Amino acid sequence: MDALKEFKELLSFASVSSEPEFKKDMEACFEWVKEQVKSCGFTTETWTADGHPTLFASWTLAPGKPTLLLYNHYDVQPTDPLDEWETPPFDPTVRDNVIYARGAQDNKGQLFYTLQALKSLWQENGAYPLNIKWLIEGEEEVGSKTLPAILKQNALKLKADYLAVIDGGIPSADTPAVTLGMRGLVTLEAIAQGTDHDLHSGSHGGLAYNPIFALAEILASAKDKKGHIAIPGFYDDILPLTDREKSSIDFTFDEKGYEKENQAKATGGETDLPFKVRNWLRPTFEINGIAGGYAGEGFKTVIPSKAKAKISCRLVRGQNPAKIGKLVADWIMAQAPPGITIKAFVHPGGGEAVLTSPDTPLVNAFSKAYETVFQKPCLKILEGASIPIVPELSQASGATPLLVGLGLNSDFIHAPNEHFGLDRVEKGKKLLIEAIKNLSG
Amino acid sequence: MDALKEFKELLSFASVSSEPEFKKDMEACFEWVKEQVKSCGFTTETWTADGHPTLFASWTLAPGKPTLLLYNHYDVQPTDPLDEWETPPFDPTVRDNVIYARGAQDNKGQLFYTLQALKSLWQENGAYPLNIKWLIEGEEEVGSKTLPAILKQNALKLKADYLAVIDGGIPSADTPAVTLGMRGLVTLEAIAQGTDHDLHSGSHGGLAYNPIFALAEILASAKDKKGHIAIPGFYDDILPLTDREKSSIDFTFDEKGYEKENQAKATGGETDLPFKVRNWLRPTFEINGIAGGYAGEGFKTVIPSKAKAKISCRLVRGQNPAKIGKLVADWIMAQAPPGITIKAFVHPGGGEAVLTSPDTPLVNAFSKAYETVFQKPCLKILEGASIPIVPELSQASGATPLLVGLGLNSDFIHAPNEHFGLDRVEKGKKLLIEAIKNLSG
Repeated sequence: MDALKEFKELLSFASVSSEPEFKKDMEACFEWVKEQVKSCGFTTETWTADGHPTLFASWTLAPGKPTLLLYNHYDVQPTDPLDEWETPPFDPTVRDNVIYARGAQDNKGQLFYTLQALKSLWQENGAYPLNIKWLIEGEEEVGSKTLPAILKQNALKLKADYLAVIDGGIPSADTPAVTLGMRGLVTLEAIAQGTDHDLHSGSHGGLAYNPIFALAEILASAKDKKGHIAIPGFYDDILPLTDREKSSIDFTFDEKGYEKENQAKATGGETDLPFKVRNWLRPTFEINGIAGGYAGEGFKTVIPSKAKAKISCRLVRGQNPAKIGKLVADWIMAQAPPGITIKAFVHPGGGEAVLTSPDTPLVNAFSKAYETVFQKPCLKILEGASIPIVPELSQASGATPLLVGLGLNSDFIHAPNEHFGLDRVEKGKKLLIEAIKNLSG
Repeated sequence: MDALKEFKELLSFASVSSEPEFKKDMEACFEWVKEQVKSCGFTTETWTADGHPTLFASWTLAPGKPTLLLYNHYDVQPTDPLDEWETPPFDPTVRDNVIYARGAQDNKGQLFYTLQALKSLWQENGAYPLNIKWLIEGEEEVGSKTLPAILKQNALKLKADYLAVIDGGIPSADTPAVTLGMRGLVTLEAIAQGTDHDLHSGSHGGLAYNPIFALAEILASAKDKKGHIAIPGFYDDILPLTDREKSSIDFTFDEKGYEKENQAKATGGETDLPFKVRNWLRPTFEINGIAGGYAGEGFKTVIPSKAKAKISCRLVRGQNPAKIGKLVADWIMAQAPPGITIKAFVHPGGGEAVLTSPDTPLVNAFSKAYETVFQKPCLKILEGASIPIVPELSQASGATPLLVGLGLNSDFIHAPNEHFGLDRVEKGKKLLIEAIKNLSG
């Protein structure tokens, strides 16, 4: 790949948005992206509230043509557990035409081929066949904390007809698909506390209530034996699919393929529902992290003073993140056994689910582009993950959204050894060029 | 206190036996203790297997007199969470006649007043009124891993009539008591694993079984709603107290005092049994540590590949640590939900419960000594904690054991801000001097 050196530069920035120690790396990455975007003929603005900067770029010299708003992000997830990486996360390494680094796919890989596509169009024509606006944010991995306020302030500048969120994927390496919808998200934290100091588990065993045990009891009771969430009211607001939506979406699930890819069966979620329904159209209650007491080398015979859990719920159409967050937090606190105090709070950020019509010009333009690149029919699918800012970005810009991209479930995003095939950088570049041409009519 | 400088020296050694990085501190502490013991007229031997050295000291020039075997340990617990210490754990600090340091009580405080007592007797008489052997180990806080083999090898040298384990406590600062028994201990680790890498909680939510959730389910189901352990067979081997044992033991529990001391009610354990029965005569199932996924600052939306828990069970008379350990580990593994692998294993170490007769000469000698020091009747109590080596030490030496000491439940042992009253160093010195005189007849 010709542009490999530049791709590696982008991947070398430790742009971890969640950890304050990486603030300088975030800034350096932002500057690098800004210069690249400028070189494609765009004018740029830096939008910053109390967080990492957002890049807004625009080229609007195609009067009478529609306006396409593109979305990417330059921030990445933390890297731990660091010792499980085969090569360092910010020292991008190519093995067998696959590049390994934090962000290799999510979202620097997809940002990079978008850059390549626009650079190519710009270098060829010195103009674009339609108006393009481009938002590249730095807080996607921390729930786009400061972006909602920024979007509201800049709604006029964002005005667009179509919104292509280039942070999506395809079902397999040779199956093209556009993604009509994503789940929403709300994240919480729960802390169980007994005494204000750790207790000796012998002297106090049988007397003190163990906060780790209390937390385990509460978390375990949040679901029934079939994986249904047992918190009263949790499912009440869900709006089911229409018949047209249902019939246009491909619900195929490769059970064997999933098992092979993940070395584990798909046994999670509501086990009496079909796989893709569980993954796309049903909300979840997930424990993303837990910590309490001493879990390091050796052993420490304590009843710890506290234990905590990080919890997230994926949401579907109709569910309001703030409302569900409060419902879950209140329920958790109400389960506190005697002698234990439970605090639970909803993190800022999160977002609603998105579901777009299967019949928009943007869907058609990208479907055709995928078919050109892959020489195969393009499916319509949904996605279980969330990009919480998408509904707000769609609202602020007035644009019809669509999730596109070339991610695969096997790219280890958010995990050690994240990777992206260099062949997909080439395909992605072609995909964007074709889609822009199609949409410009 | 005259000897404060020396006490501070002893407390300054970071003799954390569980963490390899403190090996040099362990050795330095051992040498310091050895020199002190030598200065009291003892000949010493260093017993080492594949772990931290044990000091064996003896003075046996009182023919016709009984032999008293003393036990202390010079190793201490780890110090985390370090940020909860008001002053550094190995920079001993006196506030209001109380000394704060890791090991201030457990066991360096009690070792130190024993040293002071023997030094005083030695300096006064150049001899002791009975034969004294003294074992000071360096692996108590890691389950006395290598000591059992050492004890078997040196059984002849250890031969004694009485074993005073100076690692015990009293019910309150002005209530003297000898401790007739301790619970046993077995420790385990359980690891729940789904895939071999972390998964994105959106892309996989509803498909992958979350190993933290699996672990929470299993741990929560280990007890019923009244706190009884629900693992089949767990209670089968328990041997209850005899009537004589029952009537000699003081079961008083100060519920209000406990609540005040710990800022939490005594709501743990089997809630349909009396407090002291739960704490002394019933086994426990305790989660000492748990870790999985990302629980640091910010948020990481993963379904982690694995989660682990450190578990310990206090045991009572009749329960064999290896048998109960295997029972619990097997039960945990058998609870694995589909898609999750559970590994559970028993840590080496642990030990049986100890229960000595209420009517031995050692019990009488110490009871009388406590009454002299405190000018109050001495109670007979039990202890919920464990010193796993005591049954093996008693067996190797042939000596009748008794747990003595001046620890308080409020000393924060095994926790941040461990402390010990300097007045108790004085009292402990007198206690040992009196008990030795009483026992020599």
